[in-house]
Amino acid sequence: MKTPLTPDQLARMDAYWRAANYLSVGQIYLRDNPLLREKLTLAHVKPRLLGHWGTTPGLNFVYVHLNRVIKAMDLNMIYVTGPGHGGPGLVANTYLEGTYSELHPEVGQDVEGLKRLVTQFSWPGGIPSHVAAEVPGSINEGGELGYSLMHAYGAAFDNPDLLVACVVGDGEAETGALATSWHSNKFLNPARDGAVLPILHLNGYKIASPTILSRISHDELDALFRGYGYVPHFVEGDDPATMHQLMAATLDTVLADIRAIQRDARSRGAMDRPAWPMIVLRSPKGWTGPKEVDGNPTEGTWRSHQVPLAKLAEVPGHLDILEDWLRSYRPEELFDSAGRLKAELADLAPTGQRRMGANPHANGGQLLSDLRLPDYRDYALEVTQPGATIGEATRAAGEFLRDVLRLNADTANFRVFGPDETESNRLGAVFEATSRVFIGPQLETDRQLAADGRVMEVLSEHLCQGWLEGYLLTGRHGFFSCYEAFIHIVDSMFNQHAKWLNVARDVPWRKPIASLTYLLTSHVWRQDHNGFSHQDPGFIDHVMNKKASVVRVYLPPDANTLLSVVDHCLRSRDYINVIVAGKQPSPQWLSPDAAAAHCTIGLGTWDWASNCGADEPDVVIASAGDVPTMEALAAVTILREQIPELKMRFVNVVDLMALQAPSQHPHGMDDAAFDAIFTTDTPVIFAYHGYPALIHRLTYRRRNHDNFHVHGFQEEGTTTTPFDMAVLNELDRFHLARAVIDRIERFAGRRTAFAQFVDAQLAEHDRYVRQNGEDMPEIRNWRWTQK
Amino acid sequence: MKTPLTPDQLARMDAYWRAANYLSVGQIYLRDNPLLREKLTLAHVKPRLLGHWGTTPGLNFVYVHLNRVIKAMDLNMIYVTGPGHGGPGLVANTYLEGTYSELHPEVGQDVEGLKRLVTQFSWPGGIPSHVAAEVPGSINEGGELGYSLMHAYGAAFDNPDLLVACVVGDGEAETGALATSWHSNKFLNPARDGAVLPILHLNGYKIASPTILSRISHDELDALFRGYGYVPHFVEGDDPATMHQLMAATLDTVLADIRAIQRDARSRGAMDRPAWPMIVLRSPKGWTGPKEVDGNPTEGTWRSHQVPLAKLAEVPGHLDILEDWLRSYRPEELFDSAGRLKAELADLAPTGQRRMGANPHANGGQLLSDLRLPDYRDYALEVTQPGATIGEATRAAGEFLRDVLRLNADTANFRVFGPDETESNRLGAVFEATSRVFIGPQLETDRQLAADGRVMEVLSEHLCQGWLEGYLLTGRHGFFSCYEAFIHIVDSMFNQHAKWLNVARDVPWRKPIASLTYLLTSHVWRQDHNGFSHQDPGFIDHVMNKKASVVRVYLPPDANTLLSVVDHCLRSRDYINVIVAGKQPSPQWLSPDAAAAHCTIGLGTWDWASNCGADEPDVVIASAGDVPTMEALAAVTILREQIPELKMRFVNVVDLMALQAPSQHPHGMDDAAFDAIFTTDTPVIFAYHGYPALIHRLTYRRRNHDNFHVHGFQEEGTTTTPFDMAVLNELDRFHLARAVIDRIERFAGRRTAFAQFVDAQLAEHDRYVRQNGEDMPEIRNWRWTQK
Repeated sequence: MKTPLTPDQLARMDAYWRAANYLSVGQIYLRDNPLLREKLTLAHVKPRLLGHWGTTPGLNFVYVHLNRVIKAMDLNMIYVTGPGHGGPGLVANTYLEGTYSELHPEVGQDVEGLKRLVTQFSWPGGIPSHVAAEVPGSINEGGELGYSLMHAYGAAFDNPDLLVACVVGDGEAETGALATSWHSNKFLNPARDGAVLPILHLNGYKIASPTILSRISHDELDALFRGYGYVPHFVEGDDPATMHQLMAATLDTVLADIRAIQRDARSRGAMDRPAWPMIVLRSPKGWTGPKEVDGNPTEGTWRSHQVPLAKLAEVPGHLDILEDWLRSYRPEELFDSAGRLKAELADLAPTGQRRMGANPHANGGQLLSDLRLPDYRDYALEVTQPGATIGEATRAAGEFLRDVLRLNADTANFRVFGPDETESNRLGAVFEATSRVFIGPQLETDRQLAADGRVMEVLSEHLCQGWLEGYLLTGRHGFFSCYEAFIHIVDSMFNQHAKWLNVARDVPWRKPIASLTYLLTSHVWRQDHNGFSHQDPGFIDHVMNKKASVVRVYLPPDANTLLSVVDHCLRSRDYINVIVAGKQPSPQWLSPDAAAAHCTIGLGTWDWASNCGADEPDVVIASAGDVPTMEALAAVTILREQIPELKMRFVNVVDLMALQAPSQHPHGMDDAAFDAIFTTDTPVIFAYHGYPALIHRLTYRRRNHDNFHVHGFQEEGTTTTPFDMAVLNELDRFHLARAVIDRIERFAGRRTAFAQFVDAQLAEHDRYVRQNGEDMPEIRNWRWTQK
Repeated sequence: MKTPLTPDQLARMDAYWRAANYLSVGQIYLRDNPLLREKLTLAHVKPRLLGHWGTTPGLNFVYVHLNRVIKAMDLNMIYVTGPGHGGPGLVANTYLEGTYSELHPEVGQDVEGLKRLVTQFSWPGGIPSHVAAEVPGSINEGGELGYSLMHAYGAAFDNPDLLVACVVGDGEAETGALATSWHSNKFLNPARDGAVLPILHLNGYKIASPTILSRISHDELDALFRGYGYVPHFVEGDDPATMHQLMAATLDTVLADIRAIQRDARSRGAMDRPAWPMIVLRSPKGWTGPKEVDGNPTEGTWRSHQVPLAKLAEVPGHLDILEDWLRSYRPEELFDSAGRLKAELADLAPTGQRRMGANPHANGGQLLSDLRLPDYRDYALEVTQPGATIGEATRAAGEFLRDVLRLNADTANFRVFGPDETESNRLGAVFEATSRVFIGPQLETDRQLAADGRVMEVLSEHLCQGWLEGYLLTGRHGFFSCYEAFIHIVDSMFNQHAKWLNVARDVPWRKPIASLTYLLTSHVWRQDHNGFSHQDPGFIDHVMNKKASVVRVYLPPDANTLLSVVDHCLRSRDYINVIVAGKQPSPQWLSPDAAAAHCTIGLGTWDWASNCGADEPDVVIASAGDVPTMEALAAVTILREQIPELKMRFVNVVDLMALQAPSQHPHGMDDAAFDAIFTTDTPVIFAYHGYPALIHRLTYRRRNHDNFHVHGFQEEGTTTTPFDMAVLNELDRFHLARAVIDRIERFAGRRTAFAQFVDAQLAEHDRYVRQNGEDMPEIRNWRWTQK
């Protein structure tokens, strides 16, 4: 066995590790007596024991070893820890290296600070038990597992000098998201990007069951990671001294390998994919914890998962075991009389921004620079007359994004993400500026594929989301386009990122980062060709459950409004923006200037589509979404023709949040303006892109709310024609027109006749599509006619 | 090379494959002239070309080969196809084998039937383009990718004679869900369960990009699957005759291996995990399609993904290419003059239920038998007085489930699923009846782990959901318990299963299957110890967006109501049931009989907690969920004490759907009964488990709706105390009591004083928890006192 550590180095590193373990146990258990300068009593112990010991000593072990190599080689490194339950370990280490006290001077490096450190953990008004935005050096929420490795890769992209160490828990490794994350190496360019060092931490058990990867054979484990494209290095054992030497030697080896890979790629522009090293660290669960409690083996078993001693007040002897356990780290050797880590140990940590808790990449807002954006009006479609131009909204957005890629090529801080749908979503213009990235053999039949591409395509919404989160959290910008139905795959990842943003806003030392912007296209109304399984507009509802301070939802009705919205979103900070827009050729409504003005307010009257002039209308016809807008305008033309005396006001909503009361959302339109548009007593027929309930919810506090009648997706659909999709859900022009007449008292006498007219139209439509397999020409070729 | 097929056999199998390919292309393109007995014209071609050719010939190739071995060895086999876009292939094959015409006599085996067959595909009023519930032999929706292999394993569990062939697409293989599915072999017991034969179909491209697994080296691919625990067999090439021999030889080998594994396990009760065989099938994308179109290579490239010829009317010559392509299959050799597959080819297919389209396992309702259920009242907690008993709801449910497991041990048709949380969710009693299943080495420190366990634990909600879906779809029963926050991981899987159930109800030959029942526990109000990242009650909202005909949501407030609900759910069919219930020790409210009566109606007045008698109340206090119910009852006690003249009615809601109008949901309470309970003009203070907007949405059509004031989760939380969680979200007794006084006009004069009282209480709470780290004893030990 190689022994790269001198005896003194070994002794000091082990002491540093003991200090981190000591403070971790202290955080879980203690509220006082942090240095055990008195005999431990129940009064020193927290009444509720909340925390996870099992994974923590392993995380601490890795930290102290990374500190050594950072210092020895002046590495620029951050630390992503998948087993986020090991929060106390990360807090302990950032405290020991000094970062924590710099950011939180009240938790100083003295006895008083130590007391605060242990007390605040999992304490009301204190800090949470998991790695979260509050923890210095973190970019990975320690809640729902599975996203560490994709965050690590996202951080490494376009950061050639950065090394991202990523501990993957063996429980976490069972999740789908993590299982496919290993393939991220096919997207990491050793010349242009930094490196990720995955450290699979096998400690044998989840909450109660054995983990899969800890129970398969060495040969299978080795084959699995070679199959994923890595060279696994095994660090296995439980004797600290042996493990320290083994880990140090292994780190020396893998870092040399990483350096060689990078040197090779950067000197000769290598395009082939290297076999990156990774480490398998197998150590006991709850390593250095109590070997046995109440006659049951504890260290190395599932009993160490959370708190190995849970009932200190109830079970005699447990308090003594805790005290022995804490004293086994010999705190008196670790901290000086003032309560400060002894200088010869403190000296082991890197300094300044090399400390993993202080590395600016883990507080990406510090590094963020604005994107250079072209003037989005330069990509606008000419619209001389509403509805006269036919255009594809996402195609225009693609041209804008192409030039965003071009303008920021030098700074290399913008990427486009999507599950193999960039071209399908008609954003193909981006390929004039860049390619899809892929590291591996290329064939003649490939198109737009390159090792230095900036479009990230992989058939995993999880990877797209996770890479993008990692990229944003380290201070860059991105754009995620996705089929609307499939974005639900990342519902829970969205949740966690939204919660992170929500918390990070209140962490004073966290700087704002670029927003996460989704373009949901190939949306519910144009998935008639893919069928019912692709038809679901519910992501908006999911998003709207989160805090108003972090979410934004836009439904631009045409290309120019989409351009305005995309431009706005790429400038925004600390939000999650959801944009829903179609890719199909559709009538265009607003000139660039009109679009800009409309999007700024978020909703407004379209006078050119209204016929009430300055009079109060009989009805307000409102729309949100491109297909609903077209159908609502078609309803207007039908109504104009059939019932010329009907006075209509047409309203379009781009920014859904404008519907809410200002007390509920900062974008909420004030009540006077809202009432002026929607009236206080006129029926509102609202054609909406998604599930109707959301519009009711958003307008709930508005005066005219009881008069809102919303048409939207009703979970009806199959493989059919585009217009038939609208008909099945009663969002089509005919159903909308009938709804208008049905709601206006003064036309009560004409309802029956009008309903018959509508039924005849729908019957004709039905006959036609069943016979011909496509929509009637007058539907397909419908055009708005200005009166 | 082995050549197991005789020349005649080879010729006939190739012809059968050509027939399937021919009909697949026909479905995508044709609306008439199905046997090309006339020259092809545009009039014979569909106006909209919707379908995916790329994957289809590979699926057809596998089908014909599986037919051979089924017939030769009398195998009981079903076919799960991950690349669900290959719908035309599955329809073609079930048509060729006769199943399709038996189920749909209008699509007969003659020229007229052929015309219908090709026309109906992706046609309004016809069938969808993907594999869906309408396709015989299918259990895997061909929409969102990633779930085929977990469905296959779910089907194989407890079906020792069943062989599930599962084609995994190479695009699909990039998804997280699929990447972790390979590990399902650690949960498949060769003695007790059937076998899964995974066939990874590498055809090189997704929509536009190369797939990862098709571009890594042979060595990496081989290592990856060995690492996952399989023995990969490679079938690679593009020459049909060679590929037929290779596939046949490989299938003979792998089936012999599977038989040997099963024989070994069943004769000597092997506990070790075998290395199961799997096949890697590498064939060109769009195999047998046009080699080149407009000078661009097409077969074998991404250009074959959907329709290789998309503009037949526009581009001269394309119609000729299509005709040549269709004629290349030589239809005149395949079908007789009546339009029927020639007898010597038809003879290749298995017969009766051995046909994969007719296998009853793929229409599981045919095999479904009712669970034997104990009387749930036997597990009830004694409740002599509301609030007097303290109990853990999920613990009681665990005892009930234990005996469900026992009573159905012989029929082996019930399993419990959950991501390593069965014990944590206090369902641990099930381990008195069975164990967790794990196939592999066991250690002394393991507990409740066995190769024949019936509890499926893996740290992947995807796998739990997918296995359970596969298990249910093949006619068995199950129960899925999960932390509430993490169930969002399977939002999109839930969507797809709900859509499947919705469609399957209208497919006359699909028989009802057991419902998918979730128990969401460790819920938002008791994740104070795990923090903000674990706090999210939004799955209910997600579920409620689906059709009323398939979803049910229950919020039992205590153990006896939970038992009644679980019993009900396990008897139900074709639903998705969501039950939300806590695991913490809590006051119990209803006796077994009262619980049964309450759950039957779904919501009702609790007279013992009301003080208005027969009078009209000043306020209705309502609750849904266990913690909200406790807080609402505590508010009642505070109000009784502080404002004795206040007349309150207390209402509890178990079945959320009862709140809806009967027109919206079959469980909806009729308006008269609803108004009698909630009144038409009295304020209702509603304490709700989740996001408040849902209660407004459900009660939207009720007369008293504008008087509903809902308190629920407001996205506030962290690691704190349980009661502080309620306070942060204003769901606690004090905020509720204040809301009551604030809403009643006749107490307007007392609002200020009452608000001061409440503020003082909250301030005291705040001081106490920050000082002591736990809730005040009077909060922790609060008990309902009956007046």
